Amino acid sequence: MNKLAPSILSADFAALGEDVRKVEEAGAEYLHIDVMDGHFVPNYSLGIPVIESIRRKSVMVFDVHLMIDNPDQYIKAFAEAGADILTVHAEVCPHLNRTIAAIKENGMKACVALNPTTPLNVLDYVLEDLDMVLLMTINPGFGGQKYIESSTRKIQELRKMMEARGLEIDIEVDGGIKLNNVKTVLDAGANIIVAGSAVFGGDIEKNVTDFMKILGEA
Amino acid sequence: MNKLAPSILSADFAALGEDVRKVEEAGAEYLHIDVMDGHFVPNYSLGIPVIESIRRKSVMVFDVHLMIDNPDQYIKAFAEAGADILTVHAEVCPHLNRTIAAIKENGMKACVALNPTTPLNVLDYVLEDLDMVLLMTINPGFGGQKYIESSTRKIQELRKMMEARGLEIDIEVDGGIKLNNVKTVLDAGANIIVAGSAVFGGDIEKNVTDFMKILGEA
Amino acid sequence: MNKLAPSILSADFAALGEDVRKVEEAGAEYLHIDVMDGHFVPNYSLGIPVIESIRRKSVMVFDVHLMIDNPDQYIKAFAEAGADILTVHAEVCPHLNRTIAAIKENGMKACVALNPTTPLNVLDYVLEDLDMVLLMTINPGFGGQKYIESSTRKIQELRKMMEARGLEIDIEVDGGIKLNNVKTVLDAGANIIVAGSAVFGGDIEKNVTDFMKILGEA
Amino acid sequence: MNKLAPSILSADFAALGEDVRKVEEAGAEYLHIDVMDGHFVPNYSLGIPVIESIRRKSVMVFDVHLMIDNPDQYIKAFAEAGADILTVHAEVCPHLNRTIAAIKENGMKACVALNPTTPLNVLDYVLEDLDMVLLMTINPGFGGQKYIESSTRKIQELRKMMEARGLEIDIEVDGGIKLNNVKTVLDAGANIIVAGSAVFGGDIEKNVTDFMKILGEA
Amino acid sequence: MNKLAPSILSADFAALGEDVRKVEEAGAEYLHIDVMDGHFVPNYSLGIPVIESIRRKSVMVFDVHLMIDNPDQYIKAFAEAGADILTVHAEVCPHLNRTIAAIKENGMKACVALNPTTPLNVLDYVLEDLDMVLLMTINPGFGGQKYIESSTRKIQELRKMMEARGLEIDIEVDGGIKLNNVKTVLDAGANIIVAGSAVFGGDIEKNVTDFMKILGEA
Amino acid sequence: MNKLAPSILSADFAALGEDVRKVEEAGAEYLHIDVMDGHFVPNYSLGIPVIESIRRKSVMVFDVHLMIDNPDQYIKAFAEAGADILTVHAEVCPHLNRTIAAIKENGMKACVALNPTTPLNVLDYVLEDLDMVLLMTINPGFGGQKYIESSTRKIQELRKMMEARGLEIDIEVDGGIKLNNVKTVLDAGANIIVAGSAVFGGDIEKNVTDFMKILGEA
Repeated sequence: MNKLAPSILSADFAALGEDVRKVEEAGAEYLHIDVMDGHFVPNYSLGIPVIESIRRKSVMVFDVHLMIDNPDQYIKAFAEAGADILTVHAEVCPHLNRTIAAIKENGMKACVALNPTTPLNVLDYVLEDLDMVLLMTINPGFGGQKYIESSTRKIQELRKMMEARGLEIDIEVDGGIKLNNVKTVLDAGANIIVAGSAVFGGDIEKNVTDFMKILGEA
Repeated sequence: MNKLAPSILSADFAALGEDVRKVEEAGAEYLHIDVMDGHFVPNYSLGIPVIESIRRKSVMVFDVHLMIDNPDQYIKAFAEAGADILTVHAEVCPHLNRTIAAIKENGMKACVALNPTTPLNVLDYVLEDLDMVLLMTINPGFGGQKYIESSTRKIQELRKMMEARGLEIDIEVDGGIKLNNVKTVLDAGANIIVAGSAVFGGDIEKNVTDFMKILGEA
Repeated sequence: MNKLAPSILSADFAALGEDVRKVEEAGAEYLHIDVMDGHFVPNYSLGIPVIESIRRKSVMVFDVHLMIDNPDQYIKAFAEAGADILTVHAEVCPHLNRTIAAIKENGMKACVALNPTTPLNVLDYVLEDLDMVLLMTINPGFGGQKYIESSTRKIQELRKMMEARGLEIDIEVDGGIKLNNVKTVLDAGANIIVAGSAVFGGDIEKNVTDFMKILGEA
Repeated sequence: MNKLAPSILSADFAALGEDVRKVEEAGAEYLHIDVMDGHFVPNYSLGIPVIESIRRKSVMVFDVHLMIDNPDQYIKAFAEAGADILTVHAEVCPHLNRTIAAIKENGMKACVALNPTTPLNVLDYVLEDLDMVLLMTINPGFGGQKYIESSTRKIQELRKMMEARGLEIDIEVDGGIKLNNVKTVLDAGANIIVAGSAVFGGDIEKNVTDFMKILGEA
Repeated sequence: MNKLAPSILSADFAALGEDVRKVEEAGAEYLHIDVMDGHFVPNYSLGIPVIESIRRKSVMVFDVHLMIDNPDQYIKAFAEAGADILTVHAEVCPHLNRTIAAIKENGMKACVALNPTTPLNVLDYVLEDLDMVLLMTINPGFGGQKYIESSTRKIQELRKMMEARGLEIDIEVDGGIKLNNVKTVLDAGANIIVAGSAVFGGDIEKNVTDFMKILGEA
Repeated sequence: MNKLAPSILSADFAALGEDVRKVEEAGAEYLHIDVMDGHFVPNYSLGIPVIESIRRKSVMVFDVHLMIDNPDQYIKAFAEAGADILTVHAEVCPHLNRTIAAIKENGMKACVALNPTTPLNVLDYVLEDLDMVLLMTINPGFGGQKYIESSTRKIQELRKMMEARGLEIDIEVDGGIKLNNVKTVLDAGANIIVAGSAVFGGDIEKNVTDFMKILGEA
């Protein structure tokens, strides 16, 4: 089933509870939360106390995306902060089987993220263990970037790889997705749609409603 | 002159603008902002979009404390986000003279932070270039820790070191400072007082007022 | 030809010479020796002086598995300590061709290890240069873990990859292999079987004999 | 079109301007320049002031090969020093799409280098964005090594991969290429030929002429 | 009180339980155990399973010296393996106060080690929290090195620093200490004496007895 | 005795042999050679093949300054390339005693460099083993910077520290030194003077002569 995952990276952090309330009331079920370490990606965004604060205000599915290069040592901390889904990057997880197992042992759903140029075969021996795959459709680290066109083929190839194995795993896409290109990624096979400025810029409720209408039709 | 610097690490991140407004209206002039990278310290707190959001709501002095191990590459970004004072840790700056110069070239005041066990002589050939020294009175990375008693002697020795050189540089202290021990650190020679849970726990306005009364008397 | 490689990680390090003597007298020809660095894997096991001590007591083939992230600088030291086969991890060897060449120049056989989720195509341009490939069937770092089921398909695919190139290279498997599942990995194409607790737990001689009987039948 | 790219790693650095003049006058259009960091590769070669000095003397295409593990922070500096083509290694670029974009934004052509054992699928989602691919035919770090034979198949497979996508991208090869084996790599599909000692050892003009004759015939 | 701490780095790892039994029966109360990570020091020695194995055979005080650069994440593991004293290196502990506190919270005595050239003032704000200071009198990483003569003055200065504060903390020395120079370090102020080859080379019982005689007289 | 050490960082790398010849013929005895790794300092300068090329043309004392963070693994290579003096940075040498010993074992004189803010007590237990101390009077990484004024006091304090121990060790200074301030550093206690643009900018012979005149008078 298709889901919209508004990314708080584009929200107003001076009134974050209010922005989250708006997307939640407008019907979004997932909340995408990007954590950056200034090492794997060249930026710092938000961390555990921010997640804890909004966890107390919302029952949305907290979809926490770790753009960090040492996720193993923080799995428990993000579970306690309120994450429901925890996403780690394949590029920094040489022991990916262990990392995924640890995420599940801490009661969360497990997702692996791939940078735009990371090949799909890094999933070859772990796909069956995953609840979701996140395909980055921009380079992680900043909001407001343009969708990378080669991503469409990658989404298609990942969906085919799943179908060939009889798997129905969520494919999340993150980066540069707007009302005018979301149908492309849905058609390609994605079903969890991250949107930042396209949701939090302007009329939040209307943006969510517009996105969800397209997601419902897909 | 003594200043209170409420640390937003203990604020409510769901209503951060509101919490900041309260401390500002209650009379605090500095706002202490801790950035963590999950590498130098074992935690993730907040980053640039959080600072940008509250910068639009407040004219306080933004006192940004980088608990990160690669500050040089982020100096410009934090200046643009709205930092007024930028603090880097001596433990991770082998080229401290260059780092301090870059902070100033970006229009900010420069501060060096020292962990509880870092000796004072790391300041020997840089003290004259600083606007402030931050002595950590807990181990950086988490709020809510207990003041480390040996810090009192360290504050005294740093104040003496400054006086011996005829310098009047601010000494900021951060960690475990409450209404009941703030006089100790003031007497020892500190004049910028970071307080987190002691300000944001309970009645924020009253907490600020109580602290400022003691700071005024010091 | 099939070989059993008892892993001393599960031996009694207070009487290691004695445990090694037992497996050697029971007929095992290989001795599997895991070196950990606390960086690539989250544990510390044993090192060079341990290998030197048992080298003086045994003529078994010392099959040294480096679970370390900087193997290049230690190749000579492990050769001098008595290693006959040296295994490095593909995940940490960007210059794998050079590393393999250096192992051979130091008079040892060269093996590449792959973590459970590492794809096979990392071997695409190095397979012909190898004496053995080690497929981890658990996450490296600890004994006593359970065999990862997706490994069976991986062993089969590696054996096919070798056959397609006309290569007869040893496939070693390491992790969670017991008397009751060893036939599965042999049938899949593995021929060097690492066993730790399954050999050193209980009656060592009987365990070796039981394993070797199955290996002989495969 | 085929091009010879003499590598200054084998030139006389006491008279570099003179050696560069010789290859330029003899008709070589590209100049291959290897930068090493002592981290990604175990050697130090040359850097920015060397490039700046010869840039003032030559109009050749400066083909700068970064054997360094942190290329992102130096892209602008190498552009300013005079690079026309900038090559980065796939093994150290988790955000390869971003790196390539930055090279182009700085006015240079973008090339990705692959070590001898790095599989071709790391190019799967970036190939269309490249101006050139550099296949290392030795392990990077030193001149004077022997051509790795398995490289021939790799060149062929990369050329096929390009043709299957309708792409005409340059394939550069670097390492152990001499007059007696250059036809092999040309036939396999390479068209930019790096040569170090084979050009700068002995009669430079004659070496260039001999190479260019073979390149012209290919 | 003076103590001898035989270092198992020089023991026979094929019969470690027996060697430990000998030094224990001969009257040594401490057992010095060096753990190396191949990163902080250029060698690999032994790890947790080795300690566990001998812990089951001995009631000596296990004095575990971590020559590793990431001790914080292994404190609990070494406590569980049987360490009584845990030593970390000041050179790799920027948060030394926190590290020391964690060692004590895990029920062990806390010691800080200093390399031969590390200045004493790194202890300035942590000395009161320690149970022991370890002064390396060789460069850590290998047994069998020669005592560094400048260490004698360093021991004296550390003892004076302690006395000036009214502290009676153990000073351990490690490296190149033999029967013919142990009196020098005792006179300088050391009271815990590590000895490796001087104990385990030759007649172990006699070596221990000879050392203890001198230690008793000091 | 005072010496001038022209730094080739400011020479013309297209005609390096010629520039070196000029300073040598003008009477300079030392040649200062800066190697950078892009990690310890944010620049790449030159490396081993450059040193080898000019070694064949000059009998000056090659004073090689390693601005790199892993000097231990390159000591032998720089000795073979022709270094006479090898300088390493205290900031990156936790095992400084071992590093200095290795430099001497490879037949070179040993020098330790200190960044502008590095305190002098890092030399406390190694000073007696050194042939020279290099005080950086700018931040290493680039030529053409301005002399840091606080360096004068540091030179004085280091000279006093040496005199207090009866040592006559060379003090080299590097950064921003011109004809108009060289007397200041000589008076403070420095005796080996690095000069880059002040020597290689303009009339090289005259610059050397002018410097040497002042050095002779000091």
